[in-house]
Amino acid sequence: MSHYQKLTRRFDEIGKLTAAASILSWDSKTMMPASGTDSRGDQLACLSRVLHAQLTDSAVGEHLEGAAGEHDLLDHWQRANLREMRRRWAHAKATPADLNARFAKARIVAAAAWFDAKDRDDFEVFAPDLRVILALLREIAQAKCEHLGLSAYDALLDVHDPGTRSAHLDSIFAGLEAFLPGFARSVQDAQAATPPIPLPAVDAARQLHLIRRILTRIGWPKTGRIDHTEHPFAMSGVPQDPRITTHFDEANPHFALLAAFHEVGHGIYNLNLPKDDSKYQPVSAARGASTHEAQALGVEMQACRSSEFLSWFFPVLREAWGVDGPAWTDENLHAIYRRVEPSLIRVNADEVTYSLHVILRYRLERALLADDLAVDELPNAWDDGMASLLGVRPSGFADGCLQDIHWSMGLIGYFPTYSLGALKAAQFFDAAKRLEPGLLAELGRGNFAPWLGWLAENVHRHASLYESNALLERASGAAVDVEVFKRHLATRYLD
Amino acid sequence: MSHYQKLTRRFDEIGKLTAAASILSWDSKTMMPASGTDSRGDQLACLSRVLHAQLTDSAVGEHLEGAAGEHDLLDHWQRANLREMRRRWAHAKATPADLNARFAKARIVAAAAWFDAKDRDDFEVFAPDLRVILALLREIAQAKCEHLGLSAYDALLDVHDPGTRSAHLDSIFAGLEAFLPGFARSVQDAQAATPPIPLPAVDAARQLHLIRRILTRIGWPKTGRIDHTEHPFAMSGVPQDPRITTHFDEANPHFALLAAFHEVGHGIYNLNLPKDDSKYQPVSAARGASTHEAQALGVEMQACRSSEFLSWFFPVLREAWGVDGPAWTDENLHAIYRRVEPSLIRVNADEVTYSLHVILRYRLERALLADDLAVDELPNAWDDGMASLLGVRPSGFADGCLQDIHWSMGLIGYFPTYSLGALKAAQFFDAAKRLEPGLLAELGRGNFAPWLGWLAENVHRHASLYESNALLERASGAAVDVEVFKRHLATRYLD
Repeated sequence: MSHYQKLTRRFDEIGKLTAAASILSWDSKTMMPASGTDSRGDQLACLSRVLHAQLTDSAVGEHLEGAAGEHDLLDHWQRANLREMRRRWAHAKATPADLNARFAKARIVAAAAWFDAKDRDDFEVFAPDLRVILALLREIAQAKCEHLGLSAYDALLDVHDPGTRSAHLDSIFAGLEAFLPGFARSVQDAQAATPPIPLPAVDAARQLHLIRRILTRIGWPKTGRIDHTEHPFAMSGVPQDPRITTHFDEANPHFALLAAFHEVGHGIYNLNLPKDDSKYQPVSAARGASTHEAQALGVEMQACRSSEFLSWFFPVLREAWGVDGPAWTDENLHAIYRRVEPSLIRVNADEVTYSLHVILRYRLERALLADDLAVDELPNAWDDGMASLLGVRPSGFADGCLQDIHWSMGLIGYFPTYSLGALKAAQFFDAAKRLEPGLLAELGRGNFAPWLGWLAENVHRHASLYESNALLERASGAAVDVEVFKRHLATRYLD
Repeated sequence: MSHYQKLTRRFDEIGKLTAAASILSWDSKTMMPASGTDSRGDQLACLSRVLHAQLTDSAVGEHLEGAAGEHDLLDHWQRANLREMRRRWAHAKATPADLNARFAKARIVAAAAWFDAKDRDDFEVFAPDLRVILALLREIAQAKCEHLGLSAYDALLDVHDPGTRSAHLDSIFAGLEAFLPGFARSVQDAQAATPPIPLPAVDAARQLHLIRRILTRIGWPKTGRIDHTEHPFAMSGVPQDPRITTHFDEANPHFALLAAFHEVGHGIYNLNLPKDDSKYQPVSAARGASTHEAQALGVEMQACRSSEFLSWFFPVLREAWGVDGPAWTDENLHAIYRRVEPSLIRVNADEVTYSLHVILRYRLERALLADDLAVDELPNAWDDGMASLLGVRPSGFADGCLQDIHWSMGLIGYFPTYSLGALKAAQFFDAAKRLEPGLLAELGRGNFAPWLGWLAENVHRHASLYESNALLERASGAAVDVEVFKRHLATRYLD
């Protein structure tokens, strides 16, 4: 058996245990009674130790070295797989097993504390856990940056979105910050004369019924799970076991719907990843966070807010919910789905002001990681940042710095991939429209096949075969480009 | 660090991974889309390999030997823990890692096939998987019996109910078989004049509402999960994460209720196991299947079918369900809850004919394991056995040999512990009534505290400190005794 084959056997085991951890994490956010938190943390810490031991075992290093000599015998998938194995190995080798295990437990405990704190609108309930998470992340980032030759923040970013660096993000965000506030004001001015009528409440059962119907049409399996969570997410790591969540708010009936459009984009990417014998190999995993977010935003923002889709969708919505009257006309619904208005909650934000939320989080999390911002200073820094970037100020913590689950789960270096994903989504959609001329017309018939088929062919099936930017370039013909996104916004909101 | 301490650290890890496997198994029966079956099997097979490696690592053998020399330094909990560690180690050492892993995967796949087969009432859909399971179980039993000095069947029995042997079961079942059919006929004769009116349908939401209310009263936490499954069960292995399931059948509104009474007995035993630092140690696990079933039947049959409890319960049921009329009178409900009548489904059976179902399964599974009965002969053997033991004949497979999930999960050597548990439940209840004179009167007020408090004090908190029979003797004052159970039946059904 070759070194490469021995590695694939090892990574099969690692992939299966990672899938198990994925299910346990999903359960902790959907099904687990709060009393199970401590034990779940123990379980995941233990799995983390086992995974770390499997990844850093001296045999892996030896086989990685040996496999370098087998390069000529490997095809391009296998070479990419070897590259991804090395990447994971390097990240694992950089951090001690015990540190990873403590982090695995802390993030389950902190996520439970965050849930409680948000529910009680009390930052102090979460602050001690956030301090623990940050201390662990600093230790992890320090260990990684020494081994990987990256800055502390880039070392964390590289976990979520391999190859993405903050220097690139800084230039992208500078471009967005120079453009978005002024553009948002122009759109607001143009929309000022036609404020939409707020939607009346719709009960959660009817919301779910419609979501299930539309998502099935988009391509979500009838047996795929759609559950309620405080913070919507899609489960990754188990392509055969499709699960997304959304958040039902009866008073705000399009919230769950828009979140479901987003998560199903993630979900379908996961579903389209390889299911053959290579399914547990690193090369068969999704490419990284910005590519993943591009799939989510490709459904939510590019397809599901296109005029074509909306014109098909609104009559379906009225029929499914049995609603009528001035709030439910095409015109009013269109005004709601296209409304640009600075607001407090990122996941509710329109696609124009969205990235300003991300820029704030990016700055704050870098400052938190560097210890330039203390945890007890976070609420004020957040509120001031909102006022300065978006011109709005939270009324409490739940609509301020406690709104997102990410930091409680130790996700620092994740937020910027949302905006990077928005740019990529615009570029993928732009290319697909050019290459599949009937795409928009089909969305106007509620048919996602051309758009998602294009993504499946040009993005999904490649999994981690190419590096993130190479994948974008192959599919769209260009590197990350803020201008495509700006053009998309201008066309949609000002033309 | 002493050998014993090193062992406790190792078993802490094993306990945590076992808890993780428990959650994954629960999920596979409650939440998982069918498409996730294969991956779930892979995940559990992989965990099984990791667990096997941790248990059979040469260091464990060395420390077990070394810890023998530390005996004088250990307290009685620690000595019992060492005994339980040795037991698990001996079982693990007996079987190769790969065999365990194949079994772990096969049981997930077979359980999914069983679900499908039962749904379609088609034995052929399940037969190939049952053959796989039986072949693996024969291999496992063979390996174990050589190492453990037990017969093949006893080696499997010992996995579920340590210390129980088929020779003892044979004598118990002979006693039951000599008594039950004649006794059942006497009760049927006495009840012939007053056949109950069948209950009208009740929707699942109202059923769950009442179940939640009564179970909270029994002691189930408000946050404890109660889910629907094809076959009801209680999740073991994670005392902090309380989960039971039941099966809602709208046309048969007391089915879910009785199943919930049963499962909550398991659930409360799990909840009362040690939650201190020893919680992941083998000594802190439940004592074994017959003790566990005694807790379930102690709630379901002993407490919840007592006249005292029923007299409190029926008005609560009527009020919760908003029902009225001849089917819902105390007299008719009492007749239903006390009806003795041979029937096709074990989990629906009255406590008199129940053990006849168990005796049939015990015989069939021994014959299947010994290859004295082929899988394709099972349906006929089942139907003939039902006719001869109970005088009734299934109409298909779903109400015949496909009714129970157990064999699909590789549970051979489990069924007999239900009847053994019924005997133990009668003995525990008999002792508790003597020692807590107000117990029955309190059940008549819907108060389970004296009964469950007595079990918590005399059974639950001891976990695996004592061997199964020693635990029964300490609590009830006697060894397993069919006569106590017979007296219980005579008092309840013929007095």
